[in-house]
Formats: sequence, C-alpha cells, structure tokens
Amino acid sequence: MPRISQDQLDARRREILAGARASFARYGYEGATVRRIEEQTGLSRGAIFHHFRDKDSLFLAVAEDDAADMVATVAEHGLVQVMRDLRARADSSDEPGWLGTQLEVSRRLRTDPDFAKRWAARSQAIGDATRERLRRQRDAGVLRDDVEIETLAQFLELAYDGLVLHLAMGRPADDFGSVLDLVEEAVRRQRTDRQPRG
Amino acid sequence: MPRISQDQLDARRREILAGARASFARYGYEGATVRRIEEQTGLSRGAIFHHFRDKDSLFLAVAEDDAADMVATVAEHGLVQVMRDLRARADSSDEPGWLGTQLEVSRRLRTDPDFAKRWAARSQAIGDATRERLRRQRDAGVLRDDVEIETLAQFLELAYDGLVLHLAMGRPADDFGSVLDLVEEAVRRQRTDRQPRG
Repeated sequence: MPRISQDQLDARRREILAGARASFARYGYEGATVRRIEEQTGLSRGAIFHHFRDKDSLFLAVAEDDAADMVATVAEHGLVQVMRDLRARADSSDEPGWLGTQLEVSRRLRTDPDFAKRWAARSQAIGDATRERLRRQRDAGVLRDDVEIETLAQFLELAYDGLVLHLAMGRPADDFGSVLDLVEEAVRRQRTDRQPRG
Repeated sequence: MPRISQDQLDARRREILAGARASFARYGYEGATVRRIEEQTGLSRGAIFHHFRDKDSLFLAVAEDDAADMVATVAEHGLVQVMRDLRARADSSDEPGWLGTQLEVSRRLRTDPDFAKRWAARSQAIGDATRERLRRQRDAGVLRDDVEIETLAQFLELAYDGLVLHLAMGRPADDFGSVLDLVEEAVRRQRTDRQPRG
C-alpha cells in the first residue's frame, strides 16, 4: 500500500462522510448496512473503518459535520437563513442527505440515552449561536423588544424543527418562501401589514 | 370461548390500540415486537391479531385514531389549541405515546411509499380542517388579511411539526406557552407590541 498524504486522507474522509450521509438518509440508521455504505462510497469496509471506529462513530461524524456547518451559517446569517437554504436545497432535491440525518438524530435522541448525552454539546452550540445573533440584532434595533430573546429563539427553533420534519416527510415546500417571511416578520421590530384595513 | 358483545369487542380494540401506541412510542415501529405489544396489552398475539390483520394494520389504526382526534380539535379550537394540548400532555409526561406515533409516521412517510399513499387521505383531512377554520376566522375578522390563508395554514403546520419534533426529542417545553402565543399572534389581525418604543 503506497503512503498517503494528509490531504488524501482528509479527502477520503470527506468522501466516506458523503456516502454515509446519503446511506443514512436513504435507509435510516439501521437500514444503512455496511454493505450499502460500501456501495455508496465505492470503498471497502476496511477503508471505511480505517477512518471511523464503527458505524455509530460514522453517524456521529456525519451529524457533527452538519451541526458545525449550521453553527457557522446561524452566526453569520441567522436561523431563518438556514431555513431558506434548507428549503432551496430540498427543492433542487439533489441533497436530501442532510435532512435524513436530522431526522435520524431526533429519533436517536429519543431512543438512545448515550447518543443524547454525546449530542448535547453540539445542540448547545447551535442554540448559543442563535441567541448570540438575536442579541446582536436587538442591539442593532431590528428585533422586536417586547418579547424575551429566549422566547424568540425558541420560536425560531420551533419553525426550524418544523421545516426539518416537513421536508423529511417529502412534502413540497415550493411556496414556503412566504411562510418563512412570516416567521422572520414575527421576530422583527414591527409588523407592517401590507393591506390597509377596511 | 364465550360469546362477546360488540361493546366488549370495541373495548378490547381500544385496549389493544392503547398498548400498541405505547409500544410504538417506546420502541419505534421495528422495535415494537409482537412480544412487547403482548406484554404492554396483557393480551396474547391471538387476541391481538383477531382485531388487526398484522402489525402494520395495527400501526395504521393507531395513527388514524390520532388523526381523527386531531381533526376534531382543529375544527373546534384550531391548530394552535392542538399545540397547547400537546405541550400540556408532554409536560405531564404520562402520555408520550402520541408523539412517538407522529414521529414514526413521519419516518415511514419518508421510507415507505405504500404507507405514504395510504396516509395521504388522513393528512388531507387535518389540512382541510385547518384551512376551513382559518376561513371562518377570517370571515369573523380575527385573522390578518394581508397574507393568504394557504400561507397562514402552512405557517401553523410548520409550528405544529416543529413542536412534534421538539417534544419527540424529549426537549423541555415548559416555557413554550409564550412561544405558542407568538405563533398565534403571527396569524392574527394586528400585532400589539406590549412595550412602547423608546
């Protein structure tokens, strides 16, 4: 076996994660057998488990990758932007993997206490980024000031969870642009009704 | 075997559904083995499958029961009330079964096309009840009139799905009262910010 550079190792790792993500999304955690992950990645189980201890570690790595991406987007553009991106990706329907992972995470949180414990830190990071950004927006005067930050954050998270479940169920979201406008408007400083009242 | 009245048959059926609901919620569809459903209901598999053809039919019956309850509540009190009830029940934490069913439905919608087809009609009934009530509320002048009914309905459904996922993940919802107030306010005629602006 020839020696492999760190770049090649990293590239391989990303390849495995992408294939595993697709498999988990398509078949669920239990259904994503090692054989299916082999097929999806085009790699042998030896190659796969050189990088990840077992299927569980592989799943956690996929989910952590997704969580890290999400923290970055929330910090820069907010949770509503994450929702808009999510919807756009679902429309193009060439990357359903991420959604499946989210739903699988929620299933395992419910049924697997060990997983729930390990996941708590990642979940916390996303929540912190959301609240931090809301605080900055309140300071900038764009946020409504009659409702606590914590309530606004939980409201946005509710909408986010709803979108995840909606898309994961394969329901259409073509006209969700205006639904997400409603979500955004609900946390903003003042509602401006577009039509005058009679 | 003594002859059994229709009332007794109906009571038995409800008993089986309650036990099956609890099993599906606790173990998921695959994990809810017939043995576990036997233990939960205190009935033999013979007795259980006298009423339901197979585990799949049993699951569908549980889910349909829940959907019918939901249609009734939506028609009378609206989807936000369904959410408030759901949250209250989750708090008391003695009936987590319904949530598990909801999440299991969403998983199967994603992975089981036959189930998705059979489920479409029930899902439609809940959606119809939501839109019908919104129309009545608009006629009564309590609904905002600058956003289409369809968008408002999808917004409420988004929040509902979010609540289902949130509770199903076992996350706390003690302070969700004010979050649901936000949801309700967002579809109402006019937002009244409680604090004056500086």
